[in-house]
Amino acid sequence: MIDKKRFILPENEIPTQWYNIQADMVNKPQPMLNPGTHQPLKAEDLFPIFAEECARQELNQTDPWIDIPEEVRDQYKFYRSTPLVRATELEKALDTPAHIYFKNESVSPVGSHKLNSALAQAFYCKKQGVTNVTTETGAGQWGTALSYACRQFGLELAVYMVKISYQQKPYRRSMMQTYGAQVTASPSMSTRAGKDILTVDPQCSGSLGCAISEAIELAVNTPNCKYALGSVLNHVSLHQTVIGLEAEKQMEMAGEYPDKIIACFGGGSNFSGIAYPFMRHKILDGYNTQFIAAEPASCPKLTRGKFEYDFGDETGYTPLIPMFTLGHKFQPANIHAGGLRYHGAGAIISQLLKDGYMSAVDIQQTESFRAGVLFARTEGIVPAPESCHAIAATINEALRCKEEGKKEVLLFNLSGHGLIDMLAYDRFFANDLIDYSPSDEDINKFLKDVEPLQAK
Amino acid sequence: MIDKKRFILPENEIPTQWYNIQADMVNKPQPMLNPGTHQPLKAEDLFPIFAEECARQELNQTDPWIDIPEEVRDQYKFYRSTPLVRATELEKALDTPAHIYFKNESVSPVGSHKLNSALAQAFYCKKQGVTNVTTETGAGQWGTALSYACRQFGLELAVYMVKISYQQKPYRRSMMQTYGAQVTASPSMSTRAGKDILTVDPQCSGSLGCAISEAIELAVNTPNCKYALGSVLNHVSLHQTVIGLEAEKQMEMAGEYPDKIIACFGGGSNFSGIAYPFMRHKILDGYNTQFIAAEPASCPKLTRGKFEYDFGDETGYTPLIPMFTLGHKFQPANIHAGGLRYHGAGAIISQLLKDGYMSAVDIQQTESFRAGVLFARTEGIVPAPESCHAIAATINEALRCKEEGKKEVLLFNLSGHGLIDMLAYDRFFANDLIDYSPSDEDINKFLKDVEPLQAK
Repeated sequence: MIDKKRFILPENEIPTQWYNIQADMVNKPQPMLNPGTHQPLKAEDLFPIFAEECARQELNQTDPWIDIPEEVRDQYKFYRSTPLVRATELEKALDTPAHIYFKNESVSPVGSHKLNSALAQAFYCKKQGVTNVTTETGAGQWGTALSYACRQFGLELAVYMVKISYQQKPYRRSMMQTYGAQVTASPSMSTRAGKDILTVDPQCSGSLGCAISEAIELAVNTPNCKYALGSVLNHVSLHQTVIGLEAEKQMEMAGEYPDKIIACFGGGSNFSGIAYPFMRHKILDGYNTQFIAAEPASCPKLTRGKFEYDFGDETGYTPLIPMFTLGHKFQPANIHAGGLRYHGAGAIISQLLKDGYMSAVDIQQTESFRAGVLFARTEGIVPAPESCHAIAATINEALRCKEEGKKEVLLFNLSGHGLIDMLAYDRFFANDLIDYSPSDEDINKFLKDVEPLQAK
Repeated sequence: MIDKKRFILPENEIPTQWYNIQADMVNKPQPMLNPGTHQPLKAEDLFPIFAEECARQELNQTDPWIDIPEEVRDQYKFYRSTPLVRATELEKALDTPAHIYFKNESVSPVGSHKLNSALAQAFYCKKQGVTNVTTETGAGQWGTALSYACRQFGLELAVYMVKISYQQKPYRRSMMQTYGAQVTASPSMSTRAGKDILTVDPQCSGSLGCAISEAIELAVNTPNCKYALGSVLNHVSLHQTVIGLEAEKQMEMAGEYPDKIIACFGGGSNFSGIAYPFMRHKILDGYNTQFIAAEPASCPKLTRGKFEYDFGDETGYTPLIPMFTLGHKFQPANIHAGGLRYHGAGAIISQLLKDGYMSAVDIQQTESFRAGVLFARTEGIVPAPESCHAIAATINEALRCKEEGKKEVLLFNLSGHGLIDMLAYDRFFANDLIDYSPSDEDINKFLKDVEPLQAK
């Protein structure tokens, strides 16, 4: 018999608090800036856009532990704890001495980790009497999660879905509608932000940055309506730490501790979620764990971007965020990993990257799908195109271990499944996917608009 | 906080034996007949088609417990135990005094319960040195499961996929190909069975019965090749009992015992799986549990079929099976629950139904999707169109409980998720699905071909 394969926490071991890494960071993130005044942002500045509790969490640099509300914990019980799995068959296929574990967030009813923050944000909206919510979605994972979360808390939701995903992923749209949400392809003619973009480029296939602008615009112009974001911001990362906190206990059940922790990287939500709880031991206890963000070569903000103040959205409605960025007007190539098509990284991640607590690698699209197919054929789960990047990076590490004859314990986050993305696999098998890296010129073109950091 | 929501067995509690209800049945099923000689079937008669161990299990009426091979238990660890879930939100939405539980088989990597038997059958093929396997698939769930199972045990697989599903579910085809299987739309021109059907009706959208004929024909004409079936037969039901055996322990964890057990019904695999382990207490210990099979109104073999000898496939390659049937040439309407489009019920189920151990209800397509949407919006999981029939039947029971002011414990099997079936939900929301019941004339037309049972 194989050794124990899956590690699942009993319901009473599901974390009751999220971990706020801001409180423990040696160098705190630079302050976000009010986009009008360029003064350090106050929570009140965010109240018109976000649920108030989320705004407060966003700027909380003092409390390392934040209670998960009972109503949210009740919802977590629908699918948590998610399994920690030893990828025994992948190890065999690679013939590696490495031990590979993955945290399987694909088992949530909506198919990804996004639900962890969607439930929290929907709950905080409900709690303060909000009735309507808006959001954007790229791959559709976040939109699906928030559709379900809003349904659970009795809120109406309008989703702006990046047009290329809207076209490539009709099943995702359908899923959001099944949960009761309204879905609009972005850029749309329903907002000023959308109109401005479509006037310049009527064929624009959209981006997360643009869809965010549209969703924020609708929220601030609708009574009793708030906006919810699926990644990038600190409060989103906070909610996702439930992943890593569970994984920490589960690795203990497995009797090992990870040498390297790997996750794909779009805006940072699933990476932060699995990384921060382990990173606290690196900050506080001197652990030597390495953290690797796997980003798409076509949208390389961590490996090739600049660390400056930039907007989180294309139009410039958000605060100025101290971030590794490719420029908020950067238009990522139409890769199938829609959730990774984002120009910047959140404030915390950017500071941690700058301070050397983590590193980043870039992965080409075909390499990611090759890894995804191997994973499907060994571990059985068809991974989301986003998650394929984490798998590719993990395989690279495992093969290095083999070359070096070295046993390392690798842990990656399987952020979601790819069952709604089978079209992308079809195209991969048909050799119909292109690899792409933007030229330095492409990148510098949009970087000239970003603001220098006041102080580093 | 809500009461405990999900019940998961530790890995060491996953069953190590399947339950063979044949051994305990008061009236054993009538013997299957060799289609050539009309003599009672011997295991050897099945060896040309099936793995030998499956053939032996098929006719085993003496051993109530069959060991699950270690290699199969290793594979079960990838996704088992599956959660037993208390459907608290569905209960609230229905305002029912009933307690509703469901066994969530949708969490398997391929999205349904089908993997339980696919792994067993692939293993037994491998064990006897088979290299190639053929099968049919309706909704695509079985084909997907066997694709993955064959990959795990290093076998080549050819799948005949019912043409209407092939067209309606491109993602399913793609999933099977991702696992490495060859997929052909059925009826095809690659077999005599397919050609005969296409000659008569070039527009034929296919049926499970026809796809089975094609797969068997390919298997018997290919060296070192066996056929695997996803439902109907006794050995498939046997493998599926892991569902009910787990559920039995999990209901104990929940501190309740089901009054009614409900599952959708196509060929019987998921129904048998959840029902038989509980039914043994009805047979042996006089328990009063009720068992309800939910079949589609468009293909009503249990509620309107005849109990006679009939073939399992359209062409007549299989043994004659004593079954409730609509006739093996019955062409079910093109409902989206492709897995329920089958003309007959297995030998065991048919005997149990005749002997009053269980009952059946028929559900119309739109009623099933209405139930599925309510389930998605309350419990979060988008159910497979097949599973929607079980949910609809459960809701009817829960509403009856409400009317009668009676607390009952209802347990249904969520056989799979519907993420690959979102097109069907789109059509439901567009009011584009029709309800259909065949006329008595339609049914009698095909029943005249079936053989009378020799003895009842």
